[in-house]
Amino acid sequence: MLPSIQSIAIAGLGNVGSQLAQAFSDAGIPVKELYSRNKELTRSWADKLHTKAVDSLSNISSDICIVCVSDSAVEEVISQLPVTIKTAYTSGSIQLQDLSRSGQIGVFYPLQTFTKGRKVNLFEVPFLIEAENPDFAKQLFDLAWKISRKVMYMDSEERRKVHLAAVFVNNFVNHQLYIAEQLASQYDFDKSLLYPLLEETVRKAMEQGAFSSQTGPARRNDLNVIQAQEAMLSGAAKEIYQVLTKSIISTYNDQL
Amino acid sequence: MLPSIQSIAIAGLGNVGSQLAQAFSDAGIPVKELYSRNKELTRSWADKLHTKAVDSLSNISSDICIVCVSDSAVEEVISQLPVTIKTAYTSGSIQLQDLSRSGQIGVFYPLQTFTKGRKVNLFEVPFLIEAENPDFAKQLFDLAWKISRKVMYMDSEERRKVHLAAVFVNNFVNHQLYIAEQLASQYDFDKSLLYPLLEETVRKAMEQGAFSSQTGPARRNDLNVIQAQEAMLSGAAKEIYQVLTKSIISTYNDQL
Repeated sequence: MLPSIQSIAIAGLGNVGSQLAQAFSDAGIPVKELYSRNKELTRSWADKLHTKAVDSLSNISSDICIVCVSDSAVEEVISQLPVTIKTAYTSGSIQLQDLSRSGQIGVFYPLQTFTKGRKVNLFEVPFLIEAENPDFAKQLFDLAWKISRKVMYMDSEERRKVHLAAVFVNNFVNHQLYIAEQLASQYDFDKSLLYPLLEETVRKAMEQGAFSSQTGPARRNDLNVIQAQEAMLSGAAKEIYQVLTKSIISTYNDQL
Repeated sequence: MLPSIQSIAIAGLGNVGSQLAQAFSDAGIPVKELYSRNKELTRSWADKLHTKAVDSLSNISSDICIVCVSDSAVEEVISQLPVTIKTAYTSGSIQLQDLSRSGQIGVFYPLQTFTKGRKVNLFEVPFLIEAENPDFAKQLFDLAWKISRKVMYMDSEERRKVHLAAVFVNNFVNHQLYIAEQLASQYDFDKSLLYPLLEETVRKAMEQGAFSSQTGPARRNDLNVIQAQEAMLSGAAKEIYQVLTKSIISTYNDQL
C-alpha cells in the first residue's frame, strides 16, 4: 500500500493558497508549513492555523508542497524547493511537460474562482489531478478527496481545454455582468432588479442546456429592437453587443 | 376607491401568456377568457384552467386583456380588441407612446426569461408597470401585486434601458454558456464539470459586485495564456474571446 501524505506545505497565500490551507486544516489534515513573499501575511495565517511560517522555500520539509502562485511564478517557485519534496501546482493552463524539473511534480487544480475573503465550499469543486508517476498521482487524488467529492485525473492537454471553457463560463460571464452593472449605474436603476433574471438564466441553462434556453431580440432576429439597442450603447459595450448578437443570429437564424 | 379588476383575458399563450394565466389562476384571480392563434392550444389551456377559449379578439369582454404576443404583433392584436376593453402588453422594448391607440393601454412587463414547460416563481420577478392614466396604472400595479412582491412603476424610456441591461444578463450570458457547452462537446468533456464554477461566478458577482469579482488571464493581462487560448478557438467563439478579452484588459489593465 502507498503511504498517504502526512504533512503539507502551502507556497503562496493568495486566493487559492489561503483557501486550500484553510480547507485542509478544517478537514484535519496537518498543514505543517506556510510560505509566501508577504512575511506578515504568512505569519498571520500561521497563527490562525496553528502552523509554521517558513522564511525560505529551501527550508520546506513537508511530504508535499502545493504551489499556489500565479502562472508566471510557478516555475521559479518550484526551482527553489528542495528536490526531495514532492510538488504540485494549482494552475489550469501550465502544462506538466513544459516545466523543467527534477523530482516529482504534479497538478492539483481546483476548477473554481477564488477571491480574497470569500470562502468557497470546496466539497463541490472539481479537482483535476495529474502526475507522470502513477503512485504520486494516486497520492494527489487521495489528498484532494479529503476536501472534495469531485476529484478526477486529467492530462495537461485536456485541462487546458476545460480551462478555456471555464474562461467563457466565469471570466466572460462576469464581465457581462459588469457591463450590466455599468448600464444600471449610468441609467440610474437598481442593479439588483436584474438578479432574479440572472438566477433563472443560469438555472435554466444548467437544467435544459443553453441552446434551447436562448431568447431575446437576436434569437428572434428582431432587427428593429437590435438597432434601437445598439444605438443606446457605445465603446466596448457596443462592440460586445454586436459580436454576441451576430453570433446568436448565426447560431439560430442563418437558415431563415 | 378604485374598482379593482375582476376578470382577466389573456391574448397569446406562448411562454409569457401561459405562465401568467397559470399564475393568476393559482392566485385565485379569475382568468375569464383565453385567446391565441393556435385554437387547439387555446382549448387545452381553457380546459386546464376551467376557463373559456374565445375565437376572436373582438369577442373579448373581460375587464382587462393582457396581450402576451411577440413585439411585432402587439400593435395588430391590440387594434383588434374592443375599444372598451382595458389593455396591457408585456413587452420590454415597445414604448407606450409609439402605439396608436384608442382606449386605455398600459404596460405589464415581467423582467424574466420564460420558456415553454418551465414554471417560474413569479413572486420574485419584478413587474414593471406603466400607464398614462394614473387610475389604470394603479389597477395594473394591484393586479401584478397579486402574483409578485416586486412591482414598480417605470416609464417606457427607463424600461428600455432595463431591457437593454437584461439582454447582457440573460441573452448574452446564455450564449456564453452555449459556447462553453460547444467546447465541452467538441473537446469531449462533461459540461456539468463547469457548473460549480458557474454558480459561484454568479453568486459572487451578486454579492460583491462584478468589478471586484473579475479574475482570469485578461484580468491579469497574461498575454501568454491569452494567445494560447485564442489559438485554440475559431469562428464566432474566437471573435467573442477577442472582444471580451480586449474589454476586460481595458477595464483593468490600461493603467499598466
